[in-house]
Amino acid sequence: MAEQSQVKIGLFGLGTVGGGVVEQLQQNGTLIAERTGKQLKIAKIVTKNLAERTDLDLSGIECSEDVNFILDDPEIDIVVELIGGYTIAKTIVLEALKRGKSVVTANKALLAENCKEIFSAVYQSEGNLGFEAAVAGGIPIIRSIKEGFSGEKITEISGIINGTANYILTKMSKEGSDFHSALQQAQELGYAEADPTFDVEGNDTAHKILLLMGIAFNGIFSYDDLYVQGITGIEPIDIEVAEEFGYEIKLLGKALDRGGSYEGRVHPCLVSKENMLANVSGAFNAVEVKGNFVGPTLHYGQGAGAHPTSSAVVADIIEIARLIGAPKEAVTPALGYPVERLEEKSMLPMSEVEGPYYLRFSVVDRPGVLSQITRILGENEISIRSMIQKSRSKEPGQAVSVVMFTHTAKEANILSALSGIDQLPIVAEPTKLIRINP
Amino acid sequence: MAEQSQVKIGLFGLGTVGGGVVEQLQQNGTLIAERTGKQLKIAKIVTKNLAERTDLDLSGIECSEDVNFILDDPEIDIVVELIGGYTIAKTIVLEALKRGKSVVTANKALLAENCKEIFSAVYQSEGNLGFEAAVAGGIPIIRSIKEGFSGEKITEISGIINGTANYILTKMSKEGSDFHSALQQAQELGYAEADPTFDVEGNDTAHKILLLMGIAFNGIFSYDDLYVQGITGIEPIDIEVAEEFGYEIKLLGKALDRGGSYEGRVHPCLVSKENMLANVSGAFNAVEVKGNFVGPTLHYGQGAGAHPTSSAVVADIIEIARLIGAPKEAVTPALGYPVERLEEKSMLPMSEVEGPYYLRFSVVDRPGVLSQITRILGENEISIRSMIQKSRSKEPGQAVSVVMFTHTAKEANILSALSGIDQLPIVAEPTKLIRINP
Repeated sequence: MAEQSQVKIGLFGLGTVGGGVVEQLQQNGTLIAERTGKQLKIAKIVTKNLAERTDLDLSGIECSEDVNFILDDPEIDIVVELIGGYTIAKTIVLEALKRGKSVVTANKALLAENCKEIFSAVYQSEGNLGFEAAVAGGIPIIRSIKEGFSGEKITEISGIINGTANYILTKMSKEGSDFHSALQQAQELGYAEADPTFDVEGNDTAHKILLLMGIAFNGIFSYDDLYVQGITGIEPIDIEVAEEFGYEIKLLGKALDRGGSYEGRVHPCLVSKENMLANVSGAFNAVEVKGNFVGPTLHYGQGAGAHPTSSAVVADIIEIARLIGAPKEAVTPALGYPVERLEEKSMLPMSEVEGPYYLRFSVVDRPGVLSQITRILGENEISIRSMIQKSRSKEPGQAVSVVMFTHTAKEANILSALSGIDQLPIVAEPTKLIRINP
Repeated sequence: MAEQSQVKIGLFGLGTVGGGVVEQLQQNGTLIAERTGKQLKIAKIVTKNLAERTDLDLSGIECSEDVNFILDDPEIDIVVELIGGYTIAKTIVLEALKRGKSVVTANKALLAENCKEIFSAVYQSEGNLGFEAAVAGGIPIIRSIKEGFSGEKITEISGIINGTANYILTKMSKEGSDFHSALQQAQELGYAEADPTFDVEGNDTAHKILLLMGIAFNGIFSYDDLYVQGITGIEPIDIEVAEEFGYEIKLLGKALDRGGSYEGRVHPCLVSKENMLANVSGAFNAVEVKGNFVGPTLHYGQGAGAHPTSSAVVADIIEIARLIGAPKEAVTPALGYPVERLEEKSMLPMSEVEGPYYLRFSVVDRPGVLSQITRILGENEISIRSMIQKSRSKEPGQAVSVVMFTHTAKEANILSALSGIDQLPIVAEPTKLIRINP
């Protein structure tokens, strides 16, 4: 074999994913060296939980709790940031880039909320940035959009990119459980954290879709512009009615190019069972990408966990190691577009979004009720595709659920109609709105 | 905008895909130039059917029927071979590489049947080779395996990579049609060619799986080692019984690493509806890739057609254009592994393959028949997981179908059992064997 050059890695964080990276570089190290002609060597680790990871073989690796132990070492070529969070992680990423090191990170929150600052730092650095692991774990979705679809005008992305939320929705769909018991099961099995807010309220999905938007639409988007709604309001009756009409309910991150205006949003969606996304069960992730030439594509796999995530981290390390010494123009920029020319782009307000809707009304079961509702819908230019009345209770006098599926309507019109409908005396509870994936 | 360098492309072939490439580079040209900083210019086209493509805008492009018109031009950086076939196409690819040009091709047959010669030529050339379009059209599957899973030991690939065969099987499954009427419909709709042999007999799938094997297992495999069986023997009753037991029948290309021994094969397979592959309908393609860290992944999209295929060709052109001037070690080798160290690897004989089987016996409906069959199965160490008797006809005296699903068994044992069973006087027709995807 030809002589191998060594690439030195400094790893921050020895949690789930950090441990996975150590294992993968050990277990597949020979194969990787054969493929690349380079030895990828974790030289140093900075971690606070060294004592907890007695399962790992760390021989030959120097460990410390001091951040500068890695940053100050000129021999470290690639810094792998797997600490998470916004403060120390941000310092590490920016400092490493400033010192000409390349950075690999899985930190979607950091990147999404500091897009401009971090990608500008990459542009000014001699190092590169890899963040495949930040979105959809082991699925090479960033690479596929940046490189596989480099000749495409991307028109739409729809992603199931939070395994916790999808696990809960799958549980609710398959077993008829309600949100809280499904969440509890997810927590017991380790699919949800003790504080599940970020996952079930959609923030994590929002961070990821924002990064995909930047790559797909070649712009810097602001996290604050995203519409974000989680799955805590989904009730078993919604899943049941959706099922009857041929849909699964999924938490989607969506990004659309509507002719130069952009939509970015996170919310539950009714997805037709004819769509591959509806078949994505449990903790799995999938991202549908549509381009003007390639048409619809889907990319599916495990979105979290030590090994699927380390797989993406290691692929980034390998790519960066390969490109050491290559001229900058040979490297695909971090967002797939020259950073110096990336523009800040805004998103359409949610009121401009259009699509079909699922509306569940809680109304007193009395003649004439429907006409009051449909009159207001009609006044707001909303037409009904189908309707079903569902009793929630056999007891007389109680409210019943009436579900309507609309044709394509404007969100502004839907909200205007609902504000009127929800004030009617025959309406017992605020109307539930779920968007339907067209 | 910074000054853009121009990359000159010579295109061979102006058929379906060639026309798509012209359209895509025109329609998305500005976007591509913004992303890459390079202008990708089709300078010359060599084609025999120029007169047929009056739909295309070829202004500014020089056209000829002479192969050397492109090959002899030192200004052409990238040669795109979209002629197909083995003779002229081979000369073009090898000559272009010899002259230091890079090559992009969609020609799976050429590459699969001349693996060693062509990849050796790439190694000796200053040019690169892109062949993303050769497998699964617009799905960036080669890139995903080579780059996305560069840190993985790939263990298994299962691909629905022939749209024609999948269209026919979907038609048979959804409408209960038999093979011949489904084929006829496919031909009428342009999904199948007048001579559909390559698609329905599995050869096209075989070419593609061979290329994926080379990339995944880092070796040169011989096309002649592949086991190839098509879908012409699949009958409606097989699809019906499979359906009852929760399976779809799909034509799969399969590649497995069984601890350093390799399986490569193409044949119909019963695929559980729980598997995403079972949901791949019509002319769509999908490839499942499993790695030792990433676990199972799936990559789905359109596998053929002018635009999905041109999407892959253009992505290869962009990557090669980006890497012009980069040192050779910065470029991921064509098969993901240094060509000079690629070894020729052999495949396990089909008799060594193991898995569960679907066996459909045509037997006279008479007491004692089952015991004769199960005795022979037992003697060959084959155990039955479930069984169902299906009448093909209500008329008395005729043979009936008995279907058995086996537990995992060795192919050699299955064949030995069937050779015994098929000689029994109670057996009316040769037993039908379909492998089950485990």
